[in-house]
Order: sequence, then C-alpha cells, then structure tokens
Amino acid sequence: MSKVLINPTTMLMPAPAALVSCGEYKINPNIITVAWIGVACSEPPMIAVGIRENLYSFGLIKQSGEFVVNITGADIVREVDYCGVNSGKDVDKFKMTGLTPMEASKVKPPLIKECPINLECQVRRTLELGSHHLFIGEVVATHIDEDKLDGDKRPDVAKIQPIVYCPGARQYWTGLQAVSGAYGFSKVKK
Amino acid sequence: MSKVLINPTTMLMPAPAALVSCGEYKINPNIITVAWIGVACSEPPMIAVGIRENLYSFGLIKQSGEFVVNITGADIVREVDYCGVNSGKDVDKFKMTGLTPMEASKVKPPLIKECPINLECQVRRTLELGSHHLFIGEVVATHIDEDKLDGDKRPDVAKIQPIVYCPGARQYWTGLQAVSGAYGFSKVKK
Repeated sequence: MSKVLINPTTMLMPAPAALVSCGEYKINPNIITVAWIGVACSEPPMIAVGIRENLYSFGLIKQSGEFVVNITGADIVREVDYCGVNSGKDVDKFKMTGLTPMEASKVKPPLIKECPINLECQVRRTLELGSHHLFIGEVVATHIDEDKLDGDKRPDVAKIQPIVYCPGARQYWTGLQAVSGAYGFSKVKK
Repeated sequence: MSKVLINPTTMLMPAPAALVSCGEYKINPNIITVAWIGVACSEPPMIAVGIRENLYSFGLIKQSGEFVVNITGADIVREVDYCGVNSGKDVDKFKMTGLTPMEASKVKPPLIKECPINLECQVRRTLELGSHHLFIGEVVATHIDEDKLDGDKRPDVAKIQPIVYCPGARQYWTGLQAVSGAYGFSKVKK
C-alpha cells in the first residue's frame, strides 16, 4: 500500500451535516447546512462554524450574533441537502422542506423540531480566514428529544443515526451500526 | 415526542476521532487523539483543533507550529482510544501502539502510516478559549492511500470506514453503510 500526494484539501472525515438555523423565529428564520463545523472548547462549551461571506445566512448570523446547531438524522437527508444547495434569498427553506421551527429558550433563531439535538449558540469570536469566516459560538442551551436518550440519560446514537458527511467524496453516509467501544475501553485488558 | 433541556454541552455528532501527530519525526514524535476538530475554511484549506493547555502535545504544537491530522479507520479503534487516554509524557505512543511514523513532505511531525488520509498542517492562528486553545492550521499537503481511492480518484468511504466519535455518548461508532446521496442530490426530482 502506497500513499499518493494530492492537492492540499480539507478531507477531514467524518464531518457533520448539521442544520444551522439563524434569523429570528416568526420573523425571518433561515437554515443553512454546514459541514465545516467542530467542537472548539469544553468549558465554556464552544463550537466553531465556517461560513462563506456571500451567503444569506452569513449576514443573519453576523447581525444577530446568534445561531442554533441542529443535529441531523438519517430520516431528513434530502432536507439537509436541500438546505445546502438553495439560498434563503430565494426560498423559504422551512416552508419548502416542511421542517418545523420551534421557539428557542435563550436565542432568537428557532430550533428545528425534527432534529434530535439542538444547541443554542451565541457568537463570542469571529475570524476572517479566507473563503470562510469562522464563527465561534458558546453553547448556552442544549435540547434533546426525550425518546433519543438511553437508560443512562445519554444520547442514544443508534436511535439518532446522525448523518455523516464525507468531504472529498462529497457524500452523505448513514447506517452507523457497531459500537466499537466507549471512551477509555483500551484501558481494560483484552 | 418532547424535547428536554439539559446542561449546555458540546453534543455535536458525528465528530472525528482523529490522530494528531506532533513533535519531530525521529526525535520526539507524539500522537494525541482529538474529537474537538473541524474544517474551518476551504481556500486556503484550514482545520481548527481544540487542545487542552496542560497536555503534552499542546507544548509540542505550540513550539513547532506544525501538526498532522491523520484520519482513522475502524481497524485501529483500540489504538485511537489508547492515544486519547495516555500521555506522551509517560509513554512512547508509537512504540506502545505499533503505529508507524513516516516522514512528512512539508512539516516536521510524522504522518501515521496506518491512517488512510494524512493532512499536514501549519498553525496560522491560535485562540485561547477557556479549557481549550484552538489551533487553526492550514493544510499544506494531503496524502491518501492509493488503495483507498475510487475509480474517480475520490476517497472511497466504504474502504476507509472512518471512526465516528459521538460526544455525550462518549462512544466510537463504525460500520458506515449506505450512501444516502451525493451533495446536490436533492436537486434531482424524486
């Protein structure tokens, strides 16, 4: 097996295919699909999201300093793709996808009801990096569907079935199956 | 189905369980497992990685300004966990896991041979956020195993079988199966 050198690229997999909701609930709510997103810090809990400056959602987030990260499951792959390839300038994405906005607890943008986990965020830093600005948001409230919790009150991944986006391949994958182990399992002897 | 409000937390899934290599090949190479990582920008290609200041790898990256992001596959879950729960202060992780360091093309830290994709990075920004510092690295070289490319020279996700980490559940998942669609598939009528 040999390695080949290709053009420098962001082939980091798995990536989320998260729905970021922005704007104001009942006024101008919008949705953007993002794969350029990751956890940045534990305390305070923070998430970094890269968004292109020319996008409609960029202006909404820049203006309000708030957004919601909605985790997506396998049942809404088509809606997730739709929100990634269309602009809120042209269409009402909630209306076109049938996704349901819900009032958040601490921020103005809505939660998306059909997403099992919703992370309300307030922007703490914004960095201009090049094609994308990086918004670093602090998670100020977390919601999870009650029926997606397991007996230990942790998220039940088998039920959530998060959509996995794979950069480079540009494909959505689902069907996660096996728990290979819990964090720390290597400390236990085989 | 009702939503419950839990303590604000970084329950962003899927997350990678990437191996970040640092230090210098043949001198003091080390490995740290990171899930707090995401793509930050496309042009230039940039990746943001959150690392706790008290960790051994933090000092190595801070000092050299370089690291390599190595994408992990299902065949090395135990090694990935091992590198996340042990410190390079105490053990030689390459030796203990049997993972193989390889010379990189543009940076001092090694690639990890057993990882199908390797992204050489140079730090462009560092942010102090709280428990974690965020290193924003530009990808200056990308390597992929030749046998993990498909006929169109794109990464073959079925062969790579990236490890998926799920925060909150604190579990490694594998076994990705179905391609739900390629980016843009929703534009095609059902």
